[in-house]
Amino acid sequence: MAATARDDDSIQRSGLNRREFLHGAAAGAAGLALAGGHGGFLFASQPDAVIAQIAAEHDATVKRLQEWIARPSIAAENRGYPEGAEYMAELARDAGFQHVEIVPTKGKPGVFATLDAGAPTTLALYFMYDVKQFDPSEWSSPPLEARLVDKPGLGRIIVGRGATNTKGPQTACLAALHAFRAAGQKPPLNLVLVAEGEEEIGSPNFPQVVFRPDVEAALRKSVGIVIPLGNQALDGSVEINLGAKGIVELELVSTGETWGRGPTHDVHSSYEAQIDSPVWHLVQALDTLVRADGHTPAVEGFFDKIRPLSAAQKAILEASIPKRDEAATKKALGVAHWFGDEPWHDSLVRLVTQPTINIEGLVGGYTGPGGKTILPHRAVAKIDMRLVPDMTAAGTLELLKTHLAKHGFGDIEVNMTGGYDPTETSPDSRLVKAQIAAYRAAGIEPVLWPRLAGSWPGVTFTGAPLRLAAGMYGLGHGDGAHAPDEYFIIESANPKVAGLDGAVGSYVGLFRALA
Amino acid sequence: MAATARDDDSIQRSGLNRREFLHGAAAGAAGLALAGGHGGFLFASQPDAVIAQIAAEHDATVKRLQEWIARPSIAAENRGYPEGAEYMAELARDAGFQHVEIVPTKGKPGVFATLDAGAPTTLALYFMYDVKQFDPSEWSSPPLEARLVDKPGLGRIIVGRGATNTKGPQTACLAALHAFRAAGQKPPLNLVLVAEGEEEIGSPNFPQVVFRPDVEAALRKSVGIVIPLGNQALDGSVEINLGAKGIVELELVSTGETWGRGPTHDVHSSYEAQIDSPVWHLVQALDTLVRADGHTPAVEGFFDKIRPLSAAQKAILEASIPKRDEAATKKALGVAHWFGDEPWHDSLVRLVTQPTINIEGLVGGYTGPGGKTILPHRAVAKIDMRLVPDMTAAGTLELLKTHLAKHGFGDIEVNMTGGYDPTETSPDSRLVKAQIAAYRAAGIEPVLWPRLAGSWPGVTFTGAPLRLAAGMYGLGHGDGAHAPDEYFIIESANPKVAGLDGAVGSYVGLFRALA
Repeated sequence: MAATARDDDSIQRSGLNRREFLHGAAAGAAGLALAGGHGGFLFASQPDAVIAQIAAEHDATVKRLQEWIARPSIAAENRGYPEGAEYMAELARDAGFQHVEIVPTKGKPGVFATLDAGAPTTLALYFMYDVKQFDPSEWSSPPLEARLVDKPGLGRIIVGRGATNTKGPQTACLAALHAFRAAGQKPPLNLVLVAEGEEEIGSPNFPQVVFRPDVEAALRKSVGIVIPLGNQALDGSVEINLGAKGIVELELVSTGETWGRGPTHDVHSSYEAQIDSPVWHLVQALDTLVRADGHTPAVEGFFDKIRPLSAAQKAILEASIPKRDEAATKKALGVAHWFGDEPWHDSLVRLVTQPTINIEGLVGGYTGPGGKTILPHRAVAKIDMRLVPDMTAAGTLELLKTHLAKHGFGDIEVNMTGGYDPTETSPDSRLVKAQIAAYRAAGIEPVLWPRLAGSWPGVTFTGAPLRLAAGMYGLGHGDGAHAPDEYFIIESANPKVAGLDGAVGSYVGLFRALA
Repeated sequence: MAATARDDDSIQRSGLNRREFLHGAAAGAAGLALAGGHGGFLFASQPDAVIAQIAAEHDATVKRLQEWIARPSIAAENRGYPEGAEYMAELARDAGFQHVEIVPTKGKPGVFATLDAGAPTTLALYFMYDVKQFDPSEWSSPPLEARLVDKPGLGRIIVGRGATNTKGPQTACLAALHAFRAAGQKPPLNLVLVAEGEEEIGSPNFPQVVFRPDVEAALRKSVGIVIPLGNQALDGSVEINLGAKGIVELELVSTGETWGRGPTHDVHSSYEAQIDSPVWHLVQALDTLVRADGHTPAVEGFFDKIRPLSAAQKAILEASIPKRDEAATKKALGVAHWFGDEPWHDSLVRLVTQPTINIEGLVGGYTGPGGKTILPHRAVAKIDMRLVPDMTAAGTLELLKTHLAKHGFGDIEVNMTGGYDPTETSPDSRLVKAQIAAYRAAGIEPVLWPRLAGSWPGVTFTGAPLRLAAGMYGLGHGDGAHAPDEYFIIESANPKVAGLDGAVGSYVGLFRALA
């Protein structure tokens, strides 16, 4: 899971997220550039009994993270179950959760835990105990050994599968609870933890955990839900996204069989003279989906449900745009011109506010080197549509199907492979205000951004029936989610970027800010 | 090399050819169905001293084929050179060619040989001594052992790489010369042989053989050139194609880099909101290439050079159409409707007379299972265009480039990977008349067809400067060119289909018919 993923040049921040990570998009991600610095990272310098315990427990926290990384749960490989859930439950118990329960689902079990501190405020936490598959031969350091390695420019990092996605940040969050206990204090708020072990395969059974009546009731008492993450870019900056676009991923499949025209198997291309081509059929269908500008969605009704940005959202956007660096972003994306040759400001407004139809991939017929004289019977376009409020995944899928049918392409299969509605969290929510306060307490002025152009399924929490505030939170930095040599910084070489202790401190800060 | 390739159900005949085989199209080929039978195959029953020697030399001919198959030359693997050329030269010498010469080229050597029988007529022969790559693990019989195997329905077959493509037919052709000598006779005509060892990689250096002045001069003296092949379908029928469409194979490549818009590397798909997509750009370019019917080429000037069929060609076509079986062809191709819901007759006229633009394949972005949220920086369409006289490969390529530029897609790379002009041979040529006579002498009424919808580079011989008649010829049957378990029938279980001796006899018959 990752709300943001960073490029190596340290200034990039992408729209990647946990749901999209499972499609392996990390390699292709570039990011948004943040201009300017934020002053030194000061969090750990605060004199405080709890903060002092963080340093005292540093080695134990690192050891806890190493032992967790050594125990991978990988749903796609049916590896590490039910041990992963049992270990997750044990970690929660160790951190002070009084009620800890493994929640069976139709797939891998989840974990539900509560920590009653007798406080007036309750915060919810989302954890995942599973990790992405890995190939040890691609790693410079064994992915389950979680070795500490010195990396120039970064400092001392821990290398292992799950280091940043997301056992590292989650360990930091739990370590904050250990620090309170070690300092002889109760946490200043109550906590509700929901965890799953199938995040990397798309969370197919997580609603069975969240919406079990007693779990849902516990979540309802919370002021919002936090997804721990190392949110810092390598310049130390932090962004708070107040929402994210929804997404529909689907395949458009044109075949001779469903069309009733063209061949039902690949035939010699000479027959194109007398046989219809399912590939031309797909090309013509695709061409109807965007306007002549090759960009703007042309699906009937696509824009009808769009709710314009509120004045408050606009103000947040306008305040943040000047902080973004156009030249650095263009360089990172390899882009010379924005769509329509728009200026940077307008292009960023478009990025935030416009829904899209994108072709992720085309595949049909012969795809190897050179040519092969066939008339293919089948061609596929992989599509993603990004949705802004109040578009819905189901509604937009229907619009697409209706459009195709209306234009004579009703035979083309529309196979949705994933998706969910947009998510929004108010900047006036207690959760966001507390996040801002906690970051500021650490010497960082977070950049608010009204809506991530990427997507994450926060609507599970922000939508009906829970309608909670939700967002990623946490200091620290890691990279390589879903890639070899995944890491999380333990001791940072850059004073503006938190190491593990700073990450732990950021949760202490959030808990206090909320309480 | 194969002018025709057959499906297992024995009634199919495809437009596949030697040049296209090297792109591996065989697997996707279906064919044209020939209706009706042709009477028993009677060739070997003729009482004749030369024909009698064919049977006497049967075992020696089989052994010669086996020994040749055991010596593969594969240009793509740089395997079997120069030994393949030396062996080809030796085979020519053994068959009675007096002048035999290895012709160096910039690639693998060719062979040029002449047999002067003191006859007034000279016939040219085209041979290839190379074979397609193979993977022995895919074969049921070792591909270089050329074992004789009984195959139900076919008879006794020889299984090995090159068995039908084309060492078997070539061995049969040479065996005819052995038979004349064994019968104490001179062949009734002079022969000129041109052979190459790079057919399977597209004959890049063959013009250096054909157009060497002395070789060209020798070819000029011939009445035409024959490409030996097992031309019989499993029902015994034989087709004589009087020409073939030309072809241009190319890739259309859309990239952010050449476009100057969109990204120069894959980026996260959320950026589609503000970045142009090279994939949409390709889709829009493709959409301009055909009319709204999704089929008819819309490239400006595409039809301008078309020369309508002559009255004679029309008569040949109309005479042959009734011999084609619509139901069997539809079944073989997996097609329920012809383009435009045309009747069979009109669809066949279209097959013969219309040029095409076909998409062989689409590939861009993410092509694996499920989706991946990227905006690809590159997408490719693999295209073939089939050309009818008097379209040319170079001219049609230019039309395409001009069209793309005119429609705003001048940035899209047009990378031609192969192609050549259409070929035509007159039904009134001595070569075709002799082929018809020879087939009839064997009890087979060949089906004339004005133009193969597929392509073969006969224009090397039929075009300027040689302007020779050219065509595939020969009885016999094989299958599996470019596939595992390639075979050629040695002893046929079907009296309508020639075995090896019948194939040899067909060359004796052709030589006599020409003389």
